[in-house]
Amino acid sequence: MLDPKIEPKKGWRFKIHEIIYGTHTPAGKLFDIILLVVILYSILIVMLESIPSMDGKYHTFFDISEWVVTILFSIEYILRLVCIRRPKEYIFSFFGIVDLLSTIPKYLSFFVGGTQYITAFRALRLLRVFRILKLVRYVGESNNLMRALHASRTKIFIFVFFVLVVSVLLGTIMYLIEGPEHGFNSIPHSVYWTIVTLTTVGYGDISPETGLGQFIATLIMIIGYGIIAVPTGIVTVEIAKGRNTIKEESPMVCASCGVEGHQNNAKHCYNCGSSLK
Amino acid sequence: MLDPKIEPKKGWRFKIHEIIYGTHTPAGKLFDIILLVVILYSILIVMLESIPSMDGKYHTFFDISEWVVTILFSIEYILRLVCIRRPKEYIFSFFGIVDLLSTIPKYLSFFVGGTQYITAFRALRLLRVFRILKLVRYVGESNNLMRALHASRTKIFIFVFFVLVVSVLLGTIMYLIEGPEHGFNSIPHSVYWTIVTLTTVGYGDISPETGLGQFIATLIMIIGYGIIAVPTGIVTVEIAKGRNTIKEESPMVCASCGVEGHQNNAKHCYNCGSSLK
Amino acid sequence: MLDPKIEPKKGWRFKIHEIIYGTHTPAGKLFDIILLVVILYSILIVMLESIPSMDGKYHTFFDISEWVVTILFSIEYILRLVCIRRPKEYIFSFFGIVDLLSTIPKYLSFFVGGTQYITAFRALRLLRVFRILKLVRYVGESNNLMRALHASRTKIFIFVFFVLVVSVLLGTIMYLIEGPEHGFNSIPHSVYWTIVTLTTVGYGDISPETGLGQFIATLIMIIGYGIIAVPTGIVTVEIAKGRNTIKEESPMVCASCGVEGHQNNAKHCYNCGSSLK
Amino acid sequence: MLDPKIEPKKGWRFKIHEIIYGTHTPAGKLFDIILLVVILYSILIVMLESIPSMDGKYHTFFDISEWVVTILFSIEYILRLVCIRRPKEYIFSFFGIVDLLSTIPKYLSFFVGGTQYITAFRALRLLRVFRILKLVRYVGESNNLMRALHASRTKIFIFVFFVLVVSVLLGTIMYLIEGPEHGFNSIPHSVYWTIVTLTTVGYGDISPETGLGQFIATLIMIIGYGIIAVPTGIVTVEIAKGRNTIKEESPMVCASCGVEGHQNNAKHCYNCGSSLK
Repeated sequence: MLDPKIEPKKGWRFKIHEIIYGTHTPAGKLFDIILLVVILYSILIVMLESIPSMDGKYHTFFDISEWVVTILFSIEYILRLVCIRRPKEYIFSFFGIVDLLSTIPKYLSFFVGGTQYITAFRALRLLRVFRILKLVRYVGESNNLMRALHASRTKIFIFVFFVLVVSVLLGTIMYLIEGPEHGFNSIPHSVYWTIVTLTTVGYGDISPETGLGQFIATLIMIIGYGIIAVPTGIVTVEIAKGRNTIKEESPMVCASCGVEGHQNNAKHCYNCGSSLK
Repeated sequence: MLDPKIEPKKGWRFKIHEIIYGTHTPAGKLFDIILLVVILYSILIVMLESIPSMDGKYHTFFDISEWVVTILFSIEYILRLVCIRRPKEYIFSFFGIVDLLSTIPKYLSFFVGGTQYITAFRALRLLRVFRILKLVRYVGESNNLMRALHASRTKIFIFVFFVLVVSVLLGTIMYLIEGPEHGFNSIPHSVYWTIVTLTTVGYGDISPETGLGQFIATLIMIIGYGIIAVPTGIVTVEIAKGRNTIKEESPMVCASCGVEGHQNNAKHCYNCGSSLK
Repeated sequence: MLDPKIEPKKGWRFKIHEIIYGTHTPAGKLFDIILLVVILYSILIVMLESIPSMDGKYHTFFDISEWVVTILFSIEYILRLVCIRRPKEYIFSFFGIVDLLSTIPKYLSFFVGGTQYITAFRALRLLRVFRILKLVRYVGESNNLMRALHASRTKIFIFVFFVLVVSVLLGTIMYLIEGPEHGFNSIPHSVYWTIVTLTTVGYGDISPETGLGQFIATLIMIIGYGIIAVPTGIVTVEIAKGRNTIKEESPMVCASCGVEGHQNNAKHCYNCGSSLK
Repeated sequence: MLDPKIEPKKGWRFKIHEIIYGTHTPAGKLFDIILLVVILYSILIVMLESIPSMDGKYHTFFDISEWVVTILFSIEYILRLVCIRRPKEYIFSFFGIVDLLSTIPKYLSFFVGGTQYITAFRALRLLRVFRILKLVRYVGESNNLMRALHASRTKIFIFVFFVLVVSVLLGTIMYLIEGPEHGFNSIPHSVYWTIVTLTTVGYGDISPETGLGQFIATLIMIIGYGIIAVPTGIVTVEIAKGRNTIKEESPMVCASCGVEGHQNNAKHCYNCGSSLK
């Protein structure tokens, strides 16, 4: 961020900075909206290009579209570098890398040019889809939800770890019971099936066929159905806590009687009626 | 709604209004119950008509039933227009449009009459099913649940948006890993599969076949299994908050300044400081 | 329940009543445990009998077992009738009907005897499985969980109703988009698919094949994934409320300073230190 | 655990004990990390060995790896026995048995040696995967989550029991409706399908084909979708309670009678009434 105290509030670099990084001027808002539309358009192009029937018909259109988007993103990237005070920090930041990865693949396909490498570069070009992560920038990161998820991360990690341990154990048991003749080809494959069942996804590409296998599958399902309560409970309590914390952080104490816990919009003490500040 | 202060409380239009829009008189209640039964009957007819074996046997009965229902709905629609003060507001309201769409398709099939268009109109007639939305009117809209969902809408939207971004990223990665030879025909198709997996639906019409694909599928499942905690947490906290808010909004009103929403143990108004009885 | 004030606390009927209905004497406890074992055994027999390979081998053993269980249940039913004060109330109570339905089918198969009816009676005999409901009697019905579910029933009903309305609407739309050629044979079948998807079950016996169908399926999944928050939120808040209500319902108020909200085991006021009765 | 008061804090046995059981010295930490890596490596080997294509190529490497791991685990097991005060308690503890089961199968395969028994011992060797349970030791067991799950266990058990009763009832009904001709081969198989549906897993290996069967399946799904709220609600409230309890159990101890667990705003001991600082 541009520090208004150090940076003089004038010059073309300041104006560009205000448009690209700022969101409070009409020009800044317009820039963000256009950027969003271009990102969504570029993702749509990448998606449609991957459908063989679409690519067959509109290959040239898609190619031109990609070039236009790539050039726009390149200009944006250069402008971001030019108008920021510490370009290195931007380059090695998460979004700096994402921004670069959104433009490079297309250029590489241009310079190398060998027809045999094109398919490989195509895959790289698909990374442009990461550009969509830019969108995350536009939702308030400082909200309670993010804080709750951050505070829950250790517990969620222990939970996921426990689920994995249980999955490895149950997956091995199922491999011994069902075996390769019923589609449980190996322990990793059997562990995969266990997670599919435990998370209640249930593809049905593999399913137990012996009575004992179906009995244990039933146990796994009930375990999975029950333990979903754990992350839900953790996050709910954490969000509820966040809300209360915010509420409690209103440091109003009545100067007359010392009572706390006034409503946010209170002007008078609910206990003795004397004025609050 | 009819304003009792302006509208004279007499005349046949007032009586019809009271029956159709009101729910506190015996006639009004009876009207609502009959309407409900007719709506459910019309939906049943539309459903059964779509089953080829049923339509073959009872085609004439279904056709007559539809005409009877259509005429009843038409009379109701006209009465609603006649007895309301501002018919334009009703016509362009959500239920006004739904009511109209419940009657029109059948008449159109009558006037046009070309045999080749009948199937197309049949599709339009299916829209009558939207009539069921009328039922929503009968559950209290002002309840805490609706308020909680309304208050959560921004957070839920951010959550859904985040799920979509993650789905696009993971879908693209899965397309690169599995590819068209394992059923992941295109990026949109692969994103569809990712959402099927992330939401723990798991049809199994497409499922990963490579080891790496199954490993990433496992990650997607665990993510999906974990993040279901987020909307649940949000809504739970919002409902809990609503309950407390309602509790706090107990009938205490300040006699001096008329402010409501005092805490349960409040002795003085939080706004003006005057004593609460 | 036997009223100890009216009923004389002696006689063989009283003793049998104490054994059958009571749970606080050693004989009463033993009776309950034996009954539980017999019920579970009878369910096991019914289950194993339905497996063709098992029935082929052990048909006579299963038949004798069923007769033994049926006679035991009959004796129990008669004793229940004999020792209770108001037999009519028992006969027409939920468990009275369940107890009768546990014994009748076997006798009917005996009296009628025609070989052609046996399969039909077999189906009726399966109703004996309802006997298991007796088990519910042994879990405390007065607990907070039951109360919370009871308090949530209206909201849960509105929620389920709303889910059904949405399912009918979305099912109809999917029928129009996918049609019988992709397995969506009729509107009821399509509504069935919608509920399979919305509840994240996802059998995969029918799955959308058109792009638009898959897009709408995606929307249905995300809706289903999100709205599971609603019943969870309702029940969680209700359970939390129940816990608090129980806490608050300890009507201890300090006689000296009038402060409420003492802990259940408090002997002295936490505010002024004076003794609480 | 080694009691520091009884055991002299010196000698090689004390040092080994500190390394193996302790986690507060650098050597103890290093030991735990190495043990963790070896356990994970041994699980990886067992998993890869079960994949036929991998076992074909690297059979010798896997065999040597298993021997190395087995010897390391044996040394560790002996050291654990040597340096602990009460070896019998360790041997018959959960982790003592798990530790033994992690080493024995490989030795047995060595001593017996008959080629026809190898596959059977292979299965036993898979039990080594239980070694992973050791990992659980490293997550704090005393945390709130474990306490919440422990406190919820009765309610969760009643819930699971109720789900099973409902599954048996609904499974029997589905067997009667669908029957063996639609894949519902027996009541146990039908109950299995019911649990697959109720827990929203939905493999799709069996799915109802009659209209009535699909209707009841729909009901089962909605029940399953709704009752997931129950364990979630229980655990959430229990976690929330845990948090509050911890808060309330803040270090206030009555100086007179030594009672803990005073409310946050308490001025006097709730037990003896004497003033709290």
